[in-house]
Amino acid sequence: MPRLYVLVLSGGAGTRLWPRSRRDRPKQFLDLIADRTLLQDTVDRVREIVPVERIFVVAPPAHRPLIHEQLPELATDHVVVEPYPRGNAAAVGLAMAALAAFDPEAVVAVLPSDHVVERRAQFRKVLLAATAAAERGHLVTLGIAPTAPDTGFGYIEAGERLDIEAPVEVRLVKRFIEKPKREAAEKMVADGGHFWNAGMFVWRVEEVIKAYEQHLPATAKAIGAIREAIGSPRYESVLAEVWEETDRTTLDYGIAEKASNVAVVPADIGWHDVGSWARLAAVVSGTENWSSGDLLAEDANGNYVWAPGKLTALIGVEDLVVVDTPDALLISPKGRSEEVKTIVDRLKREDREDLL
Amino acid sequence: MPRLYVLVLSGGAGTRLWPRSRRDRPKQFLDLIADRTLLQDTVDRVREIVPVERIFVVAPPAHRPLIHEQLPELATDHVVVEPYPRGNAAAVGLAMAALAAFDPEAVVAVLPSDHVVERRAQFRKVLLAATAAAERGHLVTLGIAPTAPDTGFGYIEAGERLDIEAPVEVRLVKRFIEKPKREAAEKMVADGGHFWNAGMFVWRVEEVIKAYEQHLPATAKAIGAIREAIGSPRYESVLAEVWEETDRTTLDYGIAEKASNVAVVPADIGWHDVGSWARLAAVVSGTENWSSGDLLAEDANGNYVWAPGKLTALIGVEDLVVVDTPDALLISPKGRSEEVKTIVDRLKREDREDLL
Repeated sequence: MPRLYVLVLSGGAGTRLWPRSRRDRPKQFLDLIADRTLLQDTVDRVREIVPVERIFVVAPPAHRPLIHEQLPELATDHVVVEPYPRGNAAAVGLAMAALAAFDPEAVVAVLPSDHVVERRAQFRKVLLAATAAAERGHLVTLGIAPTAPDTGFGYIEAGERLDIEAPVEVRLVKRFIEKPKREAAEKMVADGGHFWNAGMFVWRVEEVIKAYEQHLPATAKAIGAIREAIGSPRYESVLAEVWEETDRTTLDYGIAEKASNVAVVPADIGWHDVGSWARLAAVVSGTENWSSGDLLAEDANGNYVWAPGKLTALIGVEDLVVVDTPDALLISPKGRSEEVKTIVDRLKREDREDLL
Repeated sequence: MPRLYVLVLSGGAGTRLWPRSRRDRPKQFLDLIADRTLLQDTVDRVREIVPVERIFVVAPPAHRPLIHEQLPELATDHVVVEPYPRGNAAAVGLAMAALAAFDPEAVVAVLPSDHVVERRAQFRKVLLAATAAAERGHLVTLGIAPTAPDTGFGYIEAGERLDIEAPVEVRLVKRFIEKPKREAAEKMVADGGHFWNAGMFVWRVEEVIKAYEQHLPATAKAIGAIREAIGSPRYESVLAEVWEETDRTTLDYGIAEKASNVAVVPADIGWHDVGSWARLAAVVSGTENWSSGDLLAEDANGNYVWAPGKLTALIGVEDLVVVDTPDALLISPKGRSEEVKTIVDRLKREDREDLL
């Protein structure tokens, strides 16, 4: 068993799941799929191979109370707090400083907290394969076999297979492809050898810090200063001072697309993004009606209804998203559910803090 | 000023306005249009010409508490309670017995409690014209000038004008026409001289009792027995005994269509039936969006939303009825909102007493 650590990313506003997700309770803190929240589920699925002492979370200050409430087993100093959001390259860099101070030999899996993984055993196999490659010095990403020519994801083109003893094959990455146009997506799916970029990475901490030094030197300098201050009374002031020097960018842009030693493990793990009501609906019910409670449907099909504690009666409506909360009700066709961002933007402009 | 009485009819289940209307609170007890309920509004609009001492309500036993709650000014014995529903011919016959005992000379306006009248001053003029004709022995109905070839209403064909001094013309009725097919409705609207039957009548009590004797003799016999028992300790037992002998029919079928001395007053009073969500929506907002509370509409038009105390966000939906109550949520296209009856029938079959 390798000395594998897990870093859970708990940033992001998740406004596209409004009115359930709110500023003070983004989607990773919601029980969208099951009784456990997405954050809890993210931790649950690695617990069989990673003890709680090796699990860290990086998050903005406002999330701290919710994280401790939902993950009471986590030690206080395992929640790494970023002063304010500057993109996930800075957030992960900060956490890498903490991990390097905790265990310079650490191999760490960086996992977003707002995804669904249905095949947990396979997910753990994939993590172990990625760990094997990471121990050989690769920056490893997980690649999801596309089930459709989705234009909402970035893609990864895989190259030759690496000669690594692992439960799942590991391949070099030829290149990262940003969210493609429809035609390009169709070609990649037809050609094979292309995977969705799900934003999950496994690497040796020292190896990724080297990559920061090479590709994001400003952030790397901040990481070095933070690392030296850990455990000292100067920590908070050093962090506050160097944080604004970090690069505002993402791991994908800032590190993964630029590094040369990137590998990918094809991950057939039943992975789903639940970044919009339509995607969430597809996960829970495919094209069937789904309701959180009693549903009477008269000639009504393909609707997703979240209206806890009440009966919903639908007559002659199709493929709607209906989300009923105590202070807000959303109704939209599934195909337009991403436009909920427009609603949230209007609420911001109108200073409706109570509804954000 | 004639000695005009008003009898308000408060029967009917109003299941087509579920989930707001419920078995124990049918639509006349709801604030569908304004702060006042339809029942209160029905009384409000006659108060300028009819003192409260001459206002009666006929209703089933279960409605009695709500009637006294909503019309506290009404004396207890002005609420005439029918033992159980046997159609409005029996209910009105029972009330006529009460009125005949109260004032044998009474002229009474029989008014349903589930309509909307926008032009109150004109409505009072129409009532006074109808009263003038009623005092001459006519059974008078109010005729609504059709605004569309609606197939959901019965029609009245008007004949020659009566020579009566009144603020609005009064005409003889040639015939009553049941809910027509589309083509027939279009012809009547094009021809003119046809009116919607809104179920409002004005007549001398003794005159309508004569009509009962002629056309509904069984009910007339019951009316006679009830009338004699009023004020005596035998009243309840007599009522219980004779009630089951009354004809199960409506005023339209049983009396108005058969009587020869029927007159009609064209009533340009801004009358609206609110018997379905689509009709109610048309009254409150025409073809515009309408919401009981805050509404954010993104490319969404013609929707009717009742969701008190919360913000509703609509994206890309058209002409929907949305009714959100604490225990039930209805969503339907306006054009299919009458199918809510199907939902109510399913709830009955499933013994969902809590939702009926």
